[in-house]
Amino acid sequence: KLIALMEPLHAADIADLLEQIDGEERRELIQLYGREFDGEILSELEESVREEVIGFLSPQVLAEAVRELDSDDVVDLVEFLDEPQQEAILDALEDVDRAAVELALSYPEGSAGRLMQSEVVMAPEHWNVGQAIDYMRGSDRLPDAFYHVILVDPRLHPIGNVTLGRLMAARRDVPLKELTEEMFRVIPATQDEEDVAYAFNQYHLISAPVVNADGRLVGQITIDDAMIVLDEEHEEDILRLAGVGEGSISDRVMETVKARLPWLAVNLVAANMAALVIAQFEAVIAQLVALAVLMPIIASMGGNAGTQSLTVAVRALATRDLTNANVGRVIRREVLVGLLNGVAFAVVMGLVAFLWFGSAGLSLVIGGALIVNMIVAGLAGTGVPVLLDKLKVDPALASGAFVTTVTDIVGFFTFLGFAALYLL
Amino acid sequence: KLIALMEPLHAADIADLLEQIDGEERRELIQLYGREFDGEILSELEESVREEVIGFLSPQVLAEAVRELDSDDVVDLVEFLDEPQQEAILDALEDVDRAAVELALSYPEGSAGRLMQSEVVMAPEHWNVGQAIDYMRGSDRLPDAFYHVILVDPRLHPIGNVTLGRLMAARRDVPLKELTEEMFRVIPATQDEEDVAYAFNQYHLISAPVVNADGRLVGQITIDDAMIVLDEEHEEDILRLAGVGEGSISDRVMETVKARLPWLAVNLVAANMAALVIAQFEAVIAQLVALAVLMPIIASMGGNAGTQSLTVAVRALATRDLTNANVGRVIRREVLVGLLNGVAFAVVMGLVAFLWFGSAGLSLVIGGALIVNMIVAGLAGTGVPVLLDKLKVDPALASGAFVTTVTDIVGFFTFLGFAALYLL
Ligand SMILES: [Mg+2]
Ligand SMILES: [Mg+2]
Ligand SMILES: [Mg+2]
Ligand SMILES: [Mg+2]
Ligand SMILES: [Mg+2]
Ligand SMILES: [Mg+2]
Ligand SMILES: [Mg+2]
Ligand SMILES: [Mg+2]
Ligand SMILES: [Mg+2]
Ligand SMILES: [Mg+2]
Ligand SMILES: [Mg+2]
Ligand SMILES: [Mg+2]
Ligand SMILES: [Mg+2]
Repeated sequence: KLIALMEPLHAADIADLLEQIDGEERRELIQLYGREFDGEILSELEESVREEVIGFLSPQVLAEAVRELDSDDVVDLVEFLDEPQQEAILDALEDVDRAAVELALSYPEGSAGRLMQSEVVMAPEHWNVGQAIDYMRGSDRLPDAFYHVILVDPRLHPIGNVTLGRLMAARRDVPLKELTEEMFRVIPATQDEEDVAYAFNQYHLISAPVVNADGRLVGQITIDDAMIVLDEEHEEDILRLAGVGEGSISDRVMETVKARLPWLAVNLVAANMAALVIAQFEAVIAQLVALAVLMPIIASMGGNAGTQSLTVAVRALATRDLTNANVGRVIRREVLVGLLNGVAFAVVMGLVAFLWFGSAGLSLVIGGALIVNMIVAGLAGTGVPVLLDKLKVDPALASGAFVTTVTDIVGFFTFLGFAALYLL
Repeated sequence: KLIALMEPLHAADIADLLEQIDGEERRELIQLYGREFDGEILSELEESVREEVIGFLSPQVLAEAVRELDSDDVVDLVEFLDEPQQEAILDALEDVDRAAVELALSYPEGSAGRLMQSEVVMAPEHWNVGQAIDYMRGSDRLPDAFYHVILVDPRLHPIGNVTLGRLMAARRDVPLKELTEEMFRVIPATQDEEDVAYAFNQYHLISAPVVNADGRLVGQITIDDAMIVLDEEHEEDILRLAGVGEGSISDRVMETVKARLPWLAVNLVAANMAALVIAQFEAVIAQLVALAVLMPIIASMGGNAGTQSLTVAVRALATRDLTNANVGRVIRREVLVGLLNGVAFAVVMGLVAFLWFGSAGLSLVIGGALIVNMIVAGLAGTGVPVLLDKLKVDPALASGAFVTTVTDIVGFFTFLGFAALYLL
C-alpha cells in the first residue's frame, strides 16, 4: 500500500519526504520500502540524511541502486562518505564506471572534475551528419540524456560542439564541422565549480566538455548540475552572511548549536568591545540618562544601513557585477547614500529627540552622530567585503557581525563623544 | 579598433562592461559601436541600463537587433519598457513573432507565460522517428536551440516529450510514443515563475511545454531561462532579508536612497520603540550606569541569534524544505538551540560582568536576560517567517528589522526589568 502511494512520486520528492520526517519514521519507511529503493533517491538526499539512509540499506539494494546512476551522480553520492561506505559502493560498479568515478575523485573537492560525468558522445572532426547518426543508432552505451555531440581531434582535444537540434535538421552529407555552435567553452577539470556555475549562467551553456591538464576530453558538465551548484552557492552566501556556518533544516539540535556558536562567540567579543566604548562615558551617562535611552537608536540605524550596503556588495561580487572598473564609483555612491539618508533621518530623529527631551543640544548631537554613523556604514559595508575579496577570503564571511561591530563602536563613540563635548 | 577589441567578447560580457562604466562612457561606446550593436547585448543588460541604451540606438539598429531574438528574449526586453519604446520594438517584428510576443505579454508579470518562447518543435503522437527527422530536415523555422520534440494530440494538448538524444539513437520506424521520457511536466502559462524555477531544479527538467487555460500548447520554457529566474529569486531573497527593496550596483545615488529609505524608516520606528522601553527604566539606569554599558550586549546577541534562525527559515521555506510536516520539530529545535546557546553565553557573560563590575547580582541578571532573549530569538526568527508564509507574504520580508525589533525590545525589557526587580 505504501509502495502504491509512493510510486507516482519523483525521486526528488521522496527524498524531500525522507528529509522532513524524523529519524525513527525514516528507518521504518525505508524498511517497508525495501527492495524498491531507487538509486535516484539517494542522489537527491542531502548529505546528513543520506549517510543515515545508506546505513539502513542492504548491500545488494545499495549496489543495484547505484549501478543505474551516471558517473557524476555516483561521485556526488560517495565523495563525502567515509572509506568503508565509499569502498562498498565503488565495489558494486562495473570496472569502466569505477575508473570514471575514481578519476573524478582524483580532482579536488568543489572542482569541475567532481561535477563532470564521464558519459559523453564524441565524434571525430571529419565526420558528417550521417556518420554521427549511424554511430549513435549503433551504440548501446549512450548517456541517458545529452545535448551535444562533441567534436574531437585525433588527440581527443575537443574542438567544437554540435547541438542535436542542428544535427537533426541537417542533411546526412553535411560535415559536422559546419554545424558547430558559435558559443564553445572548454572547462579545465581543476576549475572551481563556482566558476563553472558562473559560466553556465553567464553564457547560457547547456553542456560543456571538461578537459584534463593535457587538454584531453575527460567528461562533460550539464546545465542541470551547474544549476544545482548555483543554488548551493546561493545557500552558502545567504547562510554565511547571517553567520550560520553551515546547516540544514534537518540537522539535529547539537549540530545546530555547534554550527552557530562560533559566530555568536565572535559577536559576543564584538559586543563587549562596544560596551567598553560605552564604559568610557559612564560619567556622562550618569549625568544625562537620556543618552542611554537614545544610544541604541544610533547603533541600530548604522547596523541596518551597513547591512544594506554589505548585502548589495556581497551579491554584486558574487555575480561579478562589482569589479575594479566600478568599485570606486560604488564606494563613492554608498558614502553619498549614507550621507543623504543620514541627513534625512537626522532631521526626523532630531525633531523626535527635541519633542521627547526638550533639548536642542541633544537633538544636534543625535543628528550629527546619525549622519557620521550612516556614512561609516556605507563605507564599511562596501569596503569590508571588497577588501576580503581582494584577500581571497569569501566576502560573504563579512557577515553581519563584522560590519555591525564597526557601526556599533562608531555609533556609540560619536554619539556619547559629541554629548561629552557639547552637552556637559 | 574598438570593434576589433570587442569582437571576441560574448554579448553577456559586453553587457556587463556597459553596466560597469558610467553613463557618459556608455553613450560614447555605443555611438562608436554603432551598427554592430547586437540584439543579444540588449537582452543581457539589466533593466536600468537597458532603457538608457535603447534610447541611444537608432530605430533601424534596434529593429535589426530585435529581429534575431527568440520570442522569450523579446518579451524580456519589452515587458517593462514604456508604451512608445515597446511599440517601436513590436513594430520591427514580423507578424507571427509579434503575435507570439503579444500573447506572452497577455499573461501576468512573473508568470510562466512571460518566460516561455513560442518557438517549439512538435509532432503528432502517431509519427515515427523517420517522419520526425524528415520534418525537421524540411523545416526552415526551427528554434535556435531545442532539446525535445513535444508530442501533441489532435487538439494540440502535449502528451509527451522525446529527447533528441533518444530520437537520434532510435531506428527510423520506431514510433515516437515509445521514446517519450518518463519525467514529463506540463506548465500552465499562469503559473508563477518561482514555481517554474523550483520544478526545473527539483525535477532536473531541461525544457517543458507551456499550455494555456484550455490545455493547448502555447510555447516552451528552457532550463537556461529557469536558471535565470532561480538566480533572480535568490537575489530578491537576499536583498529583501537585508531590507534593500530592490537595487542594483549600477543604480544612481537618488535611486539607491529611495530604495533604502523606507526600510530604514521602519527601523527608526522600531528603534524608537526599543528606546521607549529603555526610557521606562531611566531611574534604574541613573542608579546603576553599568546597566547602560551592558544592555547593548543583550540586544546584539539576541539580534544575531534571531538573524541566524530567520535566515535558515527563510531559505528553507524558499527551497520548500520547511513544510507543515516538520515546522513543529524545527521550532522546537530552534528554541532548544536558543536555550543551549543562551546558557553557554550566560555563563561566559556572567563571568565577564562579575570580573568587570564585581557584582554577582548583575552577573545573574545579565545571564538570565541573555537566556530569555536567545530563546525568544529562536522563536521569533522561525515563527515570524513561517507566519508570513502562511499569510502569503514573502517570508524574506521578515527582514532583519522585524526580528531584531522583537529581540531588542525583549532584550532591553528583561535585562532592565530583572535589574529593577533584583538589584535595587
Ligand atoms: Mg531535495
Ligand atoms: Mg542521471
Ligand atoms: Mg556537489
Ligand atoms: Mg564553493
Ligand atoms: Mg548529471
Ligand atoms: Mg561563494
Ligand atoms: Mg552581471
Ligand atoms: Mg550581466
Ligand atoms: Mg524576467
Ligand atoms: Mg518573484
Ligand atoms: Mg530562452
Ligand atoms: Mg521569493
Ligand atoms: Mg529539498
